[in-house]
Amino acid sequence: MITNIKSGRVLKIGLDDDINFKNSEKKEGEKMREEEKERIRTEALEYFQRAGIVISLKEKEDMEIVDLGLNDFERTGIVLVVYINNSRYCAKEMVLFPHQTCPEHRHPDHDGREGKRETFRCRYGKVYLHTEGERTKNPKARPPVGDEKCYSVYHEIILLPGDQYTIGKNTLHWFQAGEEGAVISEFSSPSDDASDIFTDPRIRRVSND
Amino acid sequence: MITNIKSGRVLKIGLDDDINFKNSEKKEGEKMREEEKERIRTEALEYFQRAGIVISLKEKEDMEIVDLGLNDFERTGIVLVVYINNSRYCAKEMVLFPHQTCPEHRHPDHDGREGKRETFRCRYGKVYLHTEGERTKNPKARPPVGDEKCYSVYHEIILLPGDQYTIGKNTLHWFQAGEEGAVISEFSSPSDDASDIFTDPRIRRVSND
Repeated sequence: MITNIKSGRVLKIGLDDDINFKNSEKKEGEKMREEEKERIRTEALEYFQRAGIVISLKEKEDMEIVDLGLNDFERTGIVLVVYINNSRYCAKEMVLFPHQTCPEHRHPDHDGREGKRETFRCRYGKVYLHTEGERTKNPKARPPVGDEKCYSVYHEIILLPGDQYTIGKNTLHWFQAGEEGAVISEFSSPSDDASDIFTDPRIRRVSND
Repeated sequence: MITNIKSGRVLKIGLDDDINFKNSEKKEGEKMREEEKERIRTEALEYFQRAGIVISLKEKEDMEIVDLGLNDFERTGIVLVVYINNSRYCAKEMVLFPHQTCPEHRHPDHDGREGKRETFRCRYGKVYLHTEGERTKNPKARPPVGDEKCYSVYHEIILLPGDQYTIGKNTLHWFQAGEEGAVISEFSSPSDDASDIFTDPRIRRVSND
Protein backbone atom coordinates (compact mmCIF):
# COMPACT_ATOMS: atom_id res chain seq x y z
CA MET A 1 0.00 0.00 0.00
CA ILE A 2 0.77 3.59 -0.33
CA THR A 3 3.93 5.45 0.33
CA ASN A 4 7.01 5.42 2.44
CA ILE A 5 8.27 8.82 3.42
CA LYS A 6 11.17 7.33 5.32
CA SER A 7 12.57 5.43 2.36
CA GLY A 8 12.92 8.61 0.35
CA ARG A 9 9.92 8.06 -1.83
CA VAL A 10 7.97 11.27 -1.65
CA LEU A 11 4.55 12.15 -2.89
CA LYS A 12 4.01 15.48 -4.53
CA ILE A 13 0.83 17.41 -4.93
CA GLY A 14 -0.06 17.82 -8.58
CA LEU A 15 0.21 21.37 -9.85
CA ASP A 16 -2.59 20.96 -12.35
CA ASP A 17 -5.34 20.06 -9.91
CA ASP A 18 -8.50 21.91 -10.76
CA ILE A 19 -10.31 21.08 -7.56
CA ASN A 20 -10.20 23.22 -4.46
CA PHE A 21 -9.43 21.34 -1.30
CA LYS A 22 -10.00 22.45 2.25
CA ASN A 23 -6.34 22.03 3.14
CA SER A 24 -4.96 23.35 -0.10
CA GLU A 25 -3.29 26.20 1.75
CA LYS A 26 -0.67 23.74 2.96
CA LYS A 27 2.67 23.85 1.21
CA GLU A 28 2.96 21.56 -1.75
CA GLY A 29 5.49 18.78 -1.31
CA GLU A 30 6.20 19.82 2.26
CA LYS A 31 8.00 17.07 4.10
CA MET A 32 7.29 15.95 7.60
CA ARG A 33 10.08 16.85 10.00
CA GLU A 34 12.16 14.10 11.59
CA GLU A 35 11.04 14.91 15.14
CA GLU A 36 7.44 14.72 14.03
CA LYS A 37 8.05 11.32 12.44
CA GLU A 38 9.76 10.09 15.59
CA ARG A 39 6.80 11.23 17.70
CA ILE A 40 4.42 9.36 15.39
CA ARG A 41 6.58 6.22 15.51
CA THR A 42 6.54 6.27 19.29
CA GLU A 43 2.77 6.72 19.37
CA ALA A 44 2.29 3.92 16.84
CA LEU A 45 4.43 1.67 19.00
CA GLU A 46 2.03 2.29 21.87
CA TYR A 47 -0.82 1.11 19.67
CA PHE A 48 1.09 -2.06 18.79
CA GLN A 49 1.64 -2.65 22.49
CA ARG A 50 -2.08 -2.24 23.16
CA ALA A 51 -2.72 -4.80 20.41
CA GLY A 52 -0.19 -7.17 22.01
CA ILE A 53 1.99 -7.02 18.91
CA VAL A 54 5.76 -7.18 19.33
CA ILE A 55 7.84 -5.55 16.65
CA SER A 56 11.61 -5.54 16.45
CA LEU A 57 13.84 -2.51 16.88
CA LYS A 58 14.67 -2.67 13.17
CA GLU A 59 10.97 -2.71 12.33
CA LYS A 60 10.41 0.31 14.53
CA GLU A 61 13.20 2.15 12.71
CA ASP A 62 11.76 1.13 9.35
CA MET A 63 8.19 2.04 10.27
CA GLU A 64 6.56 3.84 7.35
CA ILE A 65 4.72 7.04 8.12
CA VAL A 66 2.48 7.57 5.16
CA ASP A 67 0.88 10.94 4.50
CA LEU A 68 0.50 10.51 0.76
CA GLY A 69 1.88 13.97 0.22
CA LEU A 70 -1.31 15.58 1.53
CA ASN A 71 0.39 17.13 4.57
CA ASP A 72 -2.73 16.30 6.50
CA PHE A 73 -1.47 13.25 8.41
CA GLU A 74 -3.70 13.71 11.43
CA ARG A 75 -6.77 13.22 9.24
CA THR A 76 -5.44 11.29 6.24
CA GLY A 77 -2.56 8.86 6.51
CA ILE A 78 -1.46 5.58 8.01
CA VAL A 79 1.53 3.92 9.70
CA LEU A 80 2.85 0.67 8.28
CA VAL A 81 5.20 -2.06 9.44
CA VAL A 82 5.94 -4.41 6.55
CA TYR A 83 6.83 -7.87 7.83
CA ILE A 84 7.41 -9.47 4.46
CA ASN A 85 6.78 -8.49 0.84
CA ASN A 86 8.16 -10.91 -1.69
CA SER A 87 7.17 -12.07 -5.18
CA ARG A 88 4.47 -14.36 -3.77
CA TYR A 89 2.84 -12.76 -0.72
CA CYS A 90 2.90 -9.80 1.63
CA ALA A 91 2.08 -9.26 5.30
CA LYS A 92 2.09 -6.03 7.26
CA GLU A 93 0.66 -4.32 10.31
CA MET A 94 -1.04 -0.95 10.05
CA VAL A 95 -1.90 1.68 12.64
CA LEU A 96 -4.61 4.26 12.18
CA PHE A 97 -4.82 6.94 14.84
CA PRO A 98 -8.28 7.95 16.12
CA HIS A 99 -10.57 8.90 13.21
CA GLN A 100 -7.65 8.81 10.77
CA THR A 101 -8.50 7.74 7.23
CA CYS A 102 -6.62 5.74 4.62
CA PRO A 103 -8.02 7.36 1.49
CA GLU A 104 -9.91 5.68 -1.33
CA HIS A 105 -7.86 3.66 -3.78
CA ARG A 106 -7.73 0.43 -5.76
CA HIS A 107 -5.09 -2.07 -6.88
CA PRO A 108 -5.37 -2.65 -10.65
CA ASP A 109 -3.65 -5.22 -12.82
CA HIS A 110 -0.27 -3.80 -13.84
CA ASP A 111 2.79 -4.85 -15.82
CA GLY A 112 1.14 -8.14 -16.67
CA ARG A 113 0.56 -8.92 -13.00
CA GLU A 114 -2.76 -9.35 -11.30
CA GLY A 115 -3.89 -6.51 -9.02
CA LYS A 116 -3.40 -6.95 -5.31
CA ARG A 117 -5.95 -8.87 -3.28
CA GLU A 118 -5.82 -8.12 0.45
CA THR A 119 -7.35 -9.29 3.71
CA PHE A 120 -7.73 -6.80 6.54
CA ARG A 121 -7.93 -8.22 10.05
CA CYS A 122 -8.70 -5.90 12.94
CA ARG A 123 -6.42 -6.52 15.92
CA TYR A 124 -7.29 -3.54 18.10
CA GLY A 125 -9.88 -0.77 18.09
CA LYS A 126 -12.48 -0.41 15.40
CA VAL A 127 -12.24 -0.08 11.61
CA TYR A 128 -14.86 1.37 9.30
CA LEU A 129 -14.03 -0.18 5.95
CA HIS A 130 -15.81 1.22 2.92
CA THR A 131 -15.87 -0.59 -0.39
CA GLU A 132 -17.93 -1.07 -3.53
CA GLY A 133 -21.47 -2.32 -3.01
CA GLU A 134 -24.79 -1.07 -1.79
CA ARG A 135 -24.50 2.29 -0.09
CA THR A 136 -24.87 1.93 3.69
CA LYS A 137 -27.62 4.10 5.14
CA ASN A 138 -26.29 6.26 7.95
CA PRO A 139 -22.71 5.03 7.84
CA LYS A 140 -20.61 5.55 10.95
CA ALA A 141 -17.63 6.91 9.01
CA ARG A 142 -17.49 9.94 6.74
CA PRO A 143 -14.67 11.12 4.50
CA PRO A 144 -12.50 13.90 5.90
CA VAL A 145 -14.46 17.15 5.67
CA GLY A 146 -13.67 18.98 2.46
CA ASP A 147 -12.34 15.86 0.71
CA GLU A 148 -15.72 14.26 -0.04
CA LYS A 149 -15.23 14.56 -3.78
CA CYS A 150 -12.35 12.10 -3.53
CA TYR A 151 -14.54 9.37 -2.06
CA SER A 152 -17.10 7.42 -4.06
CA VAL A 153 -17.80 4.09 -2.32
CA TYR A 154 -19.94 3.89 0.79
CA HIS A 155 -20.66 0.24 1.50
CA GLU A 156 -19.51 0.17 5.13
CA ILE A 157 -18.18 -2.90 6.93
CA ILE A 158 -17.34 -2.55 10.61
CA LEU A 159 -14.40 -4.60 11.86
CA LEU A 160 -13.77 -5.25 15.53
CA PRO A 161 -10.83 -7.28 16.90
CA GLY A 162 -10.99 -10.77 15.41
CA ASP A 163 -13.02 -9.63 12.38
CA GLN A 164 -11.59 -9.62 8.90
CA TYR A 165 -12.59 -8.81 5.34
CA THR A 166 -11.02 -9.48 1.93
CA ILE A 167 -10.91 -6.87 -0.84
CA GLY A 168 -10.59 -8.13 -4.41
CA LYS A 169 -8.22 -6.62 -6.97
CA ASN A 170 -9.17 -3.33 -8.55
CA THR A 171 -11.96 -2.76 -6.02
CA LEU A 172 -12.25 0.76 -4.61
CA HIS A 173 -11.92 0.95 -0.85
CA TRP A 174 -11.05 3.29 2.00
CA PHE A 175 -11.00 2.84 5.73
CA GLN A 176 -11.13 4.90 8.88
CA ALA A 177 -10.43 4.17 12.54
CA GLY A 178 -12.92 4.70 15.33
CA GLU A 179 -12.31 6.93 18.31
CA GLU A 180 -9.72 4.58 19.87
CA GLY A 181 -7.68 4.22 16.69
CA ALA A 182 -7.03 0.80 15.18
CA VAL A 183 -4.36 -1.79 14.55
CA ILE A 184 -4.96 -3.86 11.43
CA SER A 185 -3.07 -6.82 9.99
CA GLU A 186 -2.98 -7.03 6.23
CA PHE A 187 -2.37 -10.35 4.45
CA SER A 188 -2.15 -10.05 0.69
CA SER A 189 -0.66 -10.91 -2.65
CA PRO A 190 2.55 -8.95 -3.34
CA SER A 191 2.38 -5.25 -2.58
CA ASP A 192 3.47 -2.78 -5.23
CA ASP A 193 2.63 0.68 -3.96
CA ALA A 194 3.50 2.41 -7.22
CA SER A 195 0.59 0.79 -9.04
CA ASP A 196 -2.09 1.90 -6.57
CA ILE A 197 -4.64 4.29 -8.02
CA PHE A 198 -6.11 6.85 -5.64
CA THR A 199 -9.35 8.70 -6.29
CA ASP A 200 -7.81 11.90 -4.91
CA PRO A 201 -5.98 13.51 -7.88
CA ARG A 202 -3.55 15.25 -5.52
CA ILE A 203 -2.03 11.90 -4.64
CA ARG A 204 0.69 11.32 -7.18
CA ARG A 205 3.70 9.18 -6.77
CA VAL A 206 7.18 10.46 -7.52
CA SER A 207 10.25 8.45 -6.65
CA ASN A 208 13.21 10.27 -5.18
CA ASP A 209 15.27 7.06 -5.05
CA MET B 1 0.20 -27.08 6.47
CA ILE B 2 -0.66 -30.48 7.65
CA THR B 3 -3.95 -32.00 8.49
CA ASN B 4 -7.32 -31.13 9.83
CA ILE B 5 -8.86 -33.80 11.98
CA LYS B 6 -12.00 -31.73 12.47
CA SER B 7 -12.76 -31.38 8.76
CA GLY B 8 -12.90 -35.14 8.33
CA ARG B 9 -9.56 -35.51 6.65
CA VAL B 10 -7.81 -38.24 8.58
CA LEU B 11 -4.26 -39.46 8.47
CA LYS B 12 -3.59 -43.13 8.60
CA ILE B 13 -0.48 -44.92 9.70
CA GLY B 14 1.09 -46.79 6.85
CA LEU B 15 0.90 -50.57 7.19
CA ASP B 16 4.09 -51.20 5.28
CA ASP B 17 6.41 -49.22 7.49
CA ASP B 18 9.59 -51.13 8.08
CA ILE B 19 10.89 -48.93 10.84
CA ASN B 20 10.13 -49.50 14.49
CA PHE B 21 8.94 -46.44 16.31
CA LYS B 22 8.89 -45.85 20.04
CA ASN B 23 5.15 -45.20 20.04
CA SER B 24 4.26 -47.88 17.53
CA GLU B 25 2.21 -49.69 20.13
CA LYS B 26 -0.49 -47.05 19.67
CA LYS B 27 -3.48 -48.09 17.66
CA GLU B 28 -3.21 -47.37 13.98
CA GLY B 29 -5.69 -44.79 12.74
CA GLU B 30 -6.97 -44.13 16.24
CA LYS B 31 -8.93 -40.90 16.35
CA MET B 32 -8.76 -38.31 19.06
CA ARG B 33 -11.93 -38.15 21.10
CA GLU B 34 -14.15 -35.06 20.94
CA GLU B 35 -13.68 -34.14 24.62
CA GLU B 36 -9.92 -34.31 24.15
CA LYS B 37 -10.14 -32.01 21.13
CA GLU B 38 -12.29 -29.57 23.07
CA ARG B 39 -9.77 -29.53 25.92
CA ILE B 40 -6.98 -28.80 23.44
CA ARG B 41 -8.99 -26.03 21.79
CA THR B 42 -9.58 -24.37 25.16
CA GLU B 43 -5.90 -24.60 26.05
CA ALA B 44 -4.91 -23.20 22.65
CA LEU B 45 -7.27 -20.31 23.18
CA GLU B 46 -5.40 -19.48 26.39
CA TYR B 47 -2.19 -19.31 24.39
CA PHE B 48 -3.80 -16.94 21.90
CA GLN B 49 -4.92 -14.78 24.80
CA ARG B 50 -1.38 -14.70 26.18
CA ALA B 51 -0.21 -13.63 22.73
CA GLY B 52 -2.87 -10.88 22.66
CA ILE B 53 -4.52 -12.49 19.63
CA VAL B 54 -8.29 -12.30 19.31
CA ILE B 55 -9.97 -15.05 17.34
CA SER B 56 -13.66 -15.29 16.56
CA LEU B 57 -16.05 -17.91 17.92
CA LYS B 58 -16.25 -19.44 14.45
CA GLU B 59 -12.46 -19.63 14.30
CA LYS B 60 -12.39 -21.34 17.67
CA GLU B 61 -14.90 -23.90 16.42
CA ASP B 62 -12.89 -24.42 13.24
CA MET B 63 -9.56 -24.69 15.06
CA GLU B 64 -7.54 -27.53 13.57
CA ILE B 65 -5.98 -29.98 15.97
CA VAL B 66 -3.31 -31.69 13.96
CA ASP B 67 -1.77 -34.94 15.16
CA LEU B 68 -0.76 -36.21 11.73
CA GLY B 69 -2.15 -39.60 12.59
CA LEU B 70 0.69 -40.33 14.97
CA ASN B 71 -1.53 -40.44 18.07
CA ASP B 72 1.26 -38.69 19.89
CA PHE B 73 -0.17 -35.16 20.02
CA GLU B 74 1.51 -34.13 23.23
CA ARG B 75 4.91 -34.59 21.61
CA THR B 76 4.16 -34.22 17.88
CA GLY B 77 1.37 -32.05 16.57
CA ILE B 78 0.16 -28.48 16.24
CA VAL B 79 -2.98 -26.37 16.50
CA LEU B 80 -3.93 -24.15 13.56
CA VAL B 81 -6.32 -21.28 12.99
CA VAL B 82 -6.48 -20.50 9.27
CA TYR B 83 -7.43 -16.86 8.71
CA ILE B 84 -7.37 -16.96 4.94
CA ASN B 85 -6.21 -19.42 2.31
CA ASN B 86 -7.06 -18.45 -1.23
CA SER B 87 -5.47 -18.94 -4.64
CA ARG B 88 -2.96 -16.15 -3.99
CA TYR B 89 -1.90 -16.16 -0.33
CA CYS B 90 -2.47 -17.75 3.05
CA ALA B 91 -2.28 -16.56 6.66
CA LYS B 92 -2.74 -18.58 9.81
CA GLU B 93 -1.90 -18.69 13.50
CA MET B 94 -0.30 -21.73 15.06
CA VAL B 95 0.01 -22.90 18.65
CA LEU B 96 2.66 -25.31 19.84
CA PHE B 97 2.32 -26.51 23.41
CA PRO B 98 5.49 -26.71 25.56
CA HIS B 99 8.19 -28.76 23.80
CA GLN B 100 5.70 -29.90 21.14
CA THR B 101 7.16 -30.49 17.68
CA CYS B 102 5.82 -29.94 14.19
CA PRO B 103 7.64 -32.73 12.37
CA GLU B 104 10.05 -32.44 9.47
CA HIS B 105 8.50 -31.78 6.06
CA ARG B 106 8.82 -29.79 2.86
CA HIS B 107 6.51 -28.16 0.32
CA PRO B 108 7.44 -29.30 -3.19
CA ASP B 109 6.19 -28.04 -6.54
CA HIS B 110 2.99 -29.89 -7.35
CA ASP B 111 0.34 -29.97 -10.07
CA GLY B 112 2.23 -27.33 -12.03
CA ARG B 113 2.21 -24.99 -9.04
CA GLU B 114 5.23 -23.71 -7.19
CA GLY B 115 5.84 -25.18 -3.74
CA LYS B 116 4.77 -23.16 -0.75
CA ARG B 117 7.03 -20.44 0.61
CA GLU B 118 6.26 -19.44 4.19
CA THR B 119 7.27 -16.88 6.79
CA PHE B 120 7.08 -17.83 10.46
CA ARG B 121 6.75 -14.99 12.94
CA CYS B 122 6.96 -15.74 16.63
CA ARG B 123 4.24 -13.94 18.62
CA TYR B 124 4.62 -15.59 22.00
CA GLY B 125 7.07 -17.99 23.66
CA LYS B 126 10.07 -19.41 21.87
CA VAL B 127 10.44 -21.39 18.66
CA TYR B 128 13.35 -23.63 17.70
CA LEU B 129 13.14 -23.76 13.93
CA HIS B 130 15.34 -26.30 12.18
CA THR B 131 16.02 -26.15 8.47
CA GLU B 132 18.58 -27.06 5.83
CA GLY B 133 22.03 -25.56 6.31
CA GLU B 134 25.07 -26.01 8.51
CA ARG B 135 24.35 -28.26 11.46
CA THR B 136 24.12 -26.23 14.65
CA LYS B 137 26.50 -27.38 17.35
CA ASN B 138 24.65 -28.14 20.57
CA PRO B 139 21.17 -27.23 19.33
CA LYS B 140 18.57 -26.40 21.97
CA ALA B 141 15.91 -28.59 20.38
CA ARG B 142 16.03 -32.33 19.71
CA PRO B 143 13.57 -34.49 17.80
CA PRO B 144 11.09 -36.44 19.92
CA VAL B 145 12.94 -39.37 21.49
CA GLY B 146 12.62 -42.48 19.35
CA ASP B 147 11.70 -40.51 16.21
CA GLU B 148 15.22 -39.30 15.39
CA LYS B 149 15.36 -41.26 12.16
CA CYS B 150 12.55 -39.04 10.81
CA TYR B 151 14.60 -35.87 11.25
CA SER B 152 17.51 -34.92 9.02
CA VAL B 153 18.05 -31.14 9.18
CA TYR B 154 19.66 -29.48 12.17
CA HIS B 155 20.39 -25.89 11.29
CA GLU B 156 18.67 -24.24 14.26
CA ILE B 157 17.17 -20.76 14.25
CA ILE B 158 15.72 -19.45 17.51
CA LEU B 159 12.71 -17.17 17.21
CA LEU B 160 11.50 -14.97 20.05
CA PRO B 161 8.45 -12.67 19.86
CA GLY B 162 9.00 -10.20 17.01
CA ASP B 163 11.45 -12.49 15.21
CA GLN B 164 10.61 -14.11 11.90
CA TYR B 165 12.16 -16.39 9.30
CA THR B 166 11.20 -17.37 5.75
CA ILE B 167 11.44 -20.94 4.46
CA GLY B 168 11.75 -21.41 0.71
CA LYS B 169 9.77 -24.00 -1.26
CA ASN B 170 10.84 -27.61 -1.02
CA THR B 171 13.15 -26.88 1.91
CA LEU B 172 13.07 -29.38 4.75
CA HIS B 173 12.13 -27.89 8.11
CA TRP B 174 10.70 -28.75 11.51
CA PHE B 175 10.07 -26.68 14.59
CA GLN B 176 9.60 -27.10 18.29
CA ALA B 177 8.34 -24.85 21.08
CA GLY B 178 10.32 -23.98 24.17
CA GLU B 179 9.14 -24.65 27.69
CA GLU B 180 6.42 -21.97 27.58
CA GLY B 181 4.95 -23.15 24.29
CA ALA B 182 4.68 -20.80 21.33
CA VAL B 183 2.26 -18.87 19.18
CA ILE B 184 3.44 -18.37 15.60
CA SER B 185 1.93 -16.45 12.70
CA GLU B 186 2.48 -17.95 9.29
CA PHE B 187 2.29 -15.79 6.15
CA SER B 188 2.68 -17.75 2.94
CA SER B 189 1.78 -18.54 -0.63
CA PRO B 190 -1.34 -20.73 -0.89
CA SER B 191 -1.44 -23.68 1.47
CA ASP B 192 -2.18 -27.12 0.05
CA ASP B 193 -1.69 -29.62 2.83
CA ALA B 194 -2.07 -32.66 0.61
CA SER B 195 1.16 -31.89 -1.23
CA ASP B 196 3.35 -31.69 1.88
CA ILE B 197 6.01 -34.35 2.10
CA PHE B 198 6.96 -35.55 5.58
CA THR B 199 10.18 -37.34 6.37
CA ASP B 200 8.31 -39.67 8.75
CA PRO B 201 6.95 -42.51 6.56
CA ARG B 202 4.09 -43.10 8.99
CA ILE B 203 2.58 -39.78 8.00
CA ARG B 204 0.38 -40.49 5.01
CA ARG B 205 -2.57 -38.46 3.89
CA VAL B 206 -5.88 -40.09 3.15
CA SER B 207 -8.95 -38.01 2.47
CA ASN B 208 -12.19 -39.13 4.03
CA ASP B 209 -14.12 -36.32 2.35
